[in-house]
Amino acid sequence: MYKLIKKQKQARRGELITRKGGVQTPCFMPVATKGALKTLSIEEVKKLNPSVVLGNTYHLMLRPGSQAIKKMGGLSDFMNWPGPILTDSGGFQVFSLSGIRKISQKGVRFNSHLDGQEFFLSPEESIKIQNNIGSDIMMVLDECVELPVERKYLTESIKLTSDWASKCRDYFDKKIASKDKKKNPLLFGIVQGGLEFDLRKKSAEDLINIGFDGYAVGGLSVGESEQDMYSVLEQVCPLLPEDKPRYLMGVGYPHQIVEAVKCGIDMFDCVIPAREARHGRLYQFSDSRAWKDEINLLEKEKFYTTVNAKVKKFEFNLEPIRKESQFAELREYSKAYLRHLFKVEDPLAQRLATLNNLEFYLQMMKLLRQAIEKK
Amino acid sequence: MYKLIKKQKQARRGELITRKGGVQTPCFMPVATKGALKTLSIEEVKKLNPSVVLGNTYHLMLRPGSQAIKKMGGLSDFMNWPGPILTDSGGFQVFSLSGIRKISQKGVRFNSHLDGQEFFLSPEESIKIQNNIGSDIMMVLDECVELPVERKYLTESIKLTSDWASKCRDYFDKKIASKDKKKNPLLFGIVQGGLEFDLRKKSAEDLINIGFDGYAVGGLSVGESEQDMYSVLEQVCPLLPEDKPRYLMGVGYPHQIVEAVKCGIDMFDCVIPAREARHGRLYQFSDSRAWKDEINLLEKEKFYTTVNAKVKKFEFNLEPIRKESQFAELREYSKAYLRHLFKVEDPLAQRLATLNNLEFYLQMMKLLRQAIEKK
Repeated sequence: MYKLIKKQKQARRGELITRKGGVQTPCFMPVATKGALKTLSIEEVKKLNPSVVLGNTYHLMLRPGSQAIKKMGGLSDFMNWPGPILTDSGGFQVFSLSGIRKISQKGVRFNSHLDGQEFFLSPEESIKIQNNIGSDIMMVLDECVELPVERKYLTESIKLTSDWASKCRDYFDKKIASKDKKKNPLLFGIVQGGLEFDLRKKSAEDLINIGFDGYAVGGLSVGESEQDMYSVLEQVCPLLPEDKPRYLMGVGYPHQIVEAVKCGIDMFDCVIPAREARHGRLYQFSDSRAWKDEINLLEKEKFYTTVNAKVKKFEFNLEPIRKESQFAELREYSKAYLRHLFKVEDPLAQRLATLNNLEFYLQMMKLLRQAIEKK
Repeated sequence: MYKLIKKQKQARRGELITRKGGVQTPCFMPVATKGALKTLSIEEVKKLNPSVVLGNTYHLMLRPGSQAIKKMGGLSDFMNWPGPILTDSGGFQVFSLSGIRKISQKGVRFNSHLDGQEFFLSPEESIKIQNNIGSDIMMVLDECVELPVERKYLTESIKLTSDWASKCRDYFDKKIASKDKKKNPLLFGIVQGGLEFDLRKKSAEDLINIGFDGYAVGGLSVGESEQDMYSVLEQVCPLLPEDKPRYLMGVGYPHQIVEAVKCGIDMFDCVIPAREARHGRLYQFSDSRAWKDEINLLEKEKFYTTVNAKVKKFEFNLEPIRKESQFAELREYSKAYLRHLFKVEDPLAQRLATLNNLEFYLQMMKLLRQAIEKK
């Protein structure tokens, strides 16, 4: 399931085996929230060549609906993405987006943010929906707690999360798993516990006892300081089995990803590169040798900058958006033209910026993999 | 400048020679209003392979400004489009979009619809701006009159339009034209006169007396019936010189273009394929042999249909958007997926529909050229 290839201090270079093939880690998984990497065609996604893309169960269960996706052969066929797909449980968006919700031992009742329709998401239902979607890497349903929170609430919450994780495992084993193990999706548990180390430890132990194909660290990047986040990772990663992949959910900025890799995290997803592209923010390496694979990111302090494509100084800048890009559009269009596209609000602007940022993120992961392999 | 290759009744198959090469006519010119074919990258535009694209002087003079475009080497370089560019005079948008405006013999004073900034557009200024933009085919400034209008007003208006046309010609000859005729842009006059035949005739005669590289028919598709539009074309086209191209501005729906070609029109532009794509409307040939060049459009009554991509019947339709397309995206994505993209409002939806519609329009023009050449 996971092969550790090389370790450098805590940083791990590995390979995650899915039913759709191997995934070189550390890896970054771009987010196809609603079954598409916003503004990009799948031809462009294939050129970007991420190893995994992430679909959001909450959004997909509402539109087009998980039964509809199943009927059409699964999300891979629907969106023409041949590689592995990871789905979240739906829980995070239920807690952050939906209207009135009621949480119980059995699951969470909520109303769609689109039309108010009522749904009930149980641990079993979440796995069933993810399976309908055709997920290759499924996540258990967990309670996503906003920080800060009382310790008492958090203690109860991780109990619930462990209980739900156990129910997900059971449902998966009974209803999803086939005897041909190579055809099975993977199922990941999620360690919760806020910033309380003993609760994180308890959560990790519970999940390891249940047994999963991988372990995610959830409930981070929700308002705590970066230092707090790194502390949790430094404490939690050593508790997790060496022979399973570790996934830090929803994180983050490039430097956060590098730090998390140093702590021993293998997998990442984040909306930042796409969301910031929408606002015109472009990510770029401080040293263009990064595009020739000549930078060791584990040894660099500050390796990137961002710039807003709408800035005045780009008004007459005829340099290419990025001359090192594999995309003709980024090599041939000027910064001045990109600025103009943002000013006149052509959707092409967002698309070019998204390509730029995702290409940056994926190159960053490549550099991290190389850096760990070296020496 | 224009070579008539073949005539079939009034329909003309020809070649327009511009400083950027020959343009096979009849032709359709997609609209790059603000210096981009909305949602499309220039890589996609090049694959569509239109012979000319149209830029809107009004929008470009406001953003990024005609001086800015000049400074950056012209619109061709700015948007990476190597082929010929036709620009309108700016007049149409001044009359339809801008705020308070005051028209005089000298030109039209108006306020930008963006920020209220005051501008004055004279015939001379329009040509100067179009030249700054780097236009290969320029249009004279004309008064765009809304129908219905009193005959008295229309009579005065065509006098003004002729006067402005003359000023444009003079300015062009003195300030733009070089001795090396091959390097000169073309300058087109615009016949006005509403639905009054004698005024159209007067307008055409005035313009022919001044002498232009081509003649446009303006002031149509502004609320009159299709029959009225065809009547004007039937009456006006025979008045225009055989050895000059004829351009019907801002028209139209596919069947209108076919009818206008039958009247002797050579060039078209229209926002319909892009605007309707935004709303999910897809154009398609009734007979798929049209994609194999096997349909004679001059002999067909009804050759196309439209369908809205958002219709319920596409919910589970796994057929490709269009299997005959040169674009992998249209061949590989299903109708169900396109419907989903519209439902979740991903900009990719508009882009796919725009590609579909422009490919349809350009194939229609190819079929028309073939039909005229035949027999």
